[in-house]
Amino acid sequence: MNYIAVDVGGTQLRAALYPDFGMEASVIRAIPTRGEEKAIDRLLDLIASVWPDDHQVARIGLGIAGMVDPAKGVIYKAPNIDDWDYLPIVEIVQKRFQTPTVLGNDANVAALGEWKFGAGVGHHDLIYLTISTGVGSGIISNDRLIVGSHGIGAELGHVTVLPDGPMCGCGCRGHLEAISSGPSIARYVKEKIGEGRASILAHESTPLNARMVSDAARHGDELCIEAFNYAGEFLGRSIADMLHVFNPTIVILGGGVVKSGKLLIDPVMRSLEKNVLSPEYLKDFVLTTAKLGDQVGLVGALVLARGL
Amino acid sequence: MNYIAVDVGGTQLRAALYPDFGMEASVIRAIPTRGEEKAIDRLLDLIASVWPDDHQVARIGLGIAGMVDPAKGVIYKAPNIDDWDYLPIVEIVQKRFQTPTVLGNDANVAALGEWKFGAGVGHHDLIYLTISTGVGSGIISNDRLIVGSHGIGAELGHVTVLPDGPMCGCGCRGHLEAISSGPSIARYVKEKIGEGRASILAHESTPLNARMVSDAARHGDELCIEAFNYAGEFLGRSIADMLHVFNPTIVILGGGVVKSGKLLIDPVMRSLEKNVLSPEYLKDFVLTTAKLGDQVGLVGALVLARGL
Repeated sequence: MNYIAVDVGGTQLRAALYPDFGMEASVIRAIPTRGEEKAIDRLLDLIASVWPDDHQVARIGLGIAGMVDPAKGVIYKAPNIDDWDYLPIVEIVQKRFQTPTVLGNDANVAALGEWKFGAGVGHHDLIYLTISTGVGSGIISNDRLIVGSHGIGAELGHVTVLPDGPMCGCGCRGHLEAISSGPSIARYVKEKIGEGRASILAHESTPLNARMVSDAARHGDELCIEAFNYAGEFLGRSIADMLHVFNPTIVILGGGVVKSGKLLIDPVMRSLEKNVLSPEYLKDFVLTTAKLGDQVGLVGALVLARGL
Repeated sequence: MNYIAVDVGGTQLRAALYPDFGMEASVIRAIPTRGEEKAIDRLLDLIASVWPDDHQVARIGLGIAGMVDPAKGVIYKAPNIDDWDYLPIVEIVQKRFQTPTVLGNDANVAALGEWKFGAGVGHHDLIYLTISTGVGSGIISNDRLIVGSHGIGAELGHVTVLPDGPMCGCGCRGHLEAISSGPSIARYVKEKIGEGRASILAHESTPLNARMVSDAARHGDELCIEAFNYAGEFLGRSIADMLHVFNPTIVILGGGVVKSGKLLIDPVMRSLEKNVLSPEYLKDFVLTTAKLGDQVGLVGALVLARGL
């Protein structure tokens, strides 16, 4: 039997057809998330476009950027798609294709992907963090995905790390995402330049992003190095807290900002080691980077479709 | 068959004999934690003293204040008993009584007790917090206790809520326990008095504790009310964070400090509602106080012994 995996991201809708085993897709198609037709119609057409000729699909797995309830099959909120609030997407897809369909939040699904086919293979207690335009996460504890009663848990990016700190995209202050995400790193540099600090980026005319901060840091720009140290310090402290709560054997860092490499990872490790309350938590523990790259959403949705 | 439950606390070692069903013990015995003989010998004698005449015991459940590995049956550290570091307690008890024995951390075990027989009956996603000399916790997610790879997770009292904040008993700064535990509430008042603030307690000769602060607050003492507001604000923010991570349907507050009632609970609720990122997290959610009182340790160890 085949499986279809769907990844609904901020810029692309992607669908892929997978065989019974392994993680090599036989077909992958992608279209932009925003378009003229309604997103749900375009998504259904996209799924149809990867449907196998023999019509045999065991299950469809949907990974969606947003707040979703996997048990009810409902999207509460998809920030990238305006008219998907409270959309019963599982019912809609199942009705159209007459095929069992399962739903998950994109970061939770990505955690499943890294667990079964990526950096987390063989681990039973795993935390996946994606450091990108936001900070998303997926938690596997004792071989089960932790999502909570309505499926909207595992939001480690929305844990307060600095009371009354910078404003987060969610409207609260001082969340991890408001300090360690890509835009937050760029904001740190911009604000310090505004206060008169020197930087290669001081006279940059295009809006700053984490990539530019990373490049400047590699050229020795002190402010930009400091920005990564600041983000890394809070991220490391947060990971220490996560160790105290989940006692995992692995934390996997994914997302675009992790491409900055040692600039981010070194201060994270220093902060983690400083803030962990007992060396017992570092026993058999590894901090590592994600392996699946931009396939993680599809592969994760595949793992979801196949069942844990 | 009978079950034996054992609660190793800071001041008492307690053992109880329970029948097959319910939570009414047929015998309970208690001795001080510290004594002349070695604690392990006194504990084994205590268990023997509640052993039933028909010799039929299905399983022994041990709830122990400290860092323990339930899977290995080993105590890493029991802060109240000096010579129990790395003690293979399950092996020792099993050998002496030839009876299957299971081990858990006291707060985790208390969560099991409140879940099966207390305030959490019927819930599948539950967080239990005990606010006492420390802040302990137990987490049940989708009907399973979360303890992590070596069993030392679920330490919600050791999550950073105020970077570089007050010193915690564990040696880190700014943990929830360092702000919202009983001694931390008393320390807040003492420090503010030291800075010259007026209070009924300013000329108190005995060392302050949370009970005295609570009594003074009830008499309208502004500083003492402020101390509970401060502890409650951080506790509420922390609970909001826990909602984002575990999306539970209930948070149960236990421990001595909760006897201060509305003094603590009101600021907790205000802070929780202010800090939660979406009303979805408060859907079907209750914040409540524990029901089992000082039986919670024994009843929890009983639930552990019977198996989930």
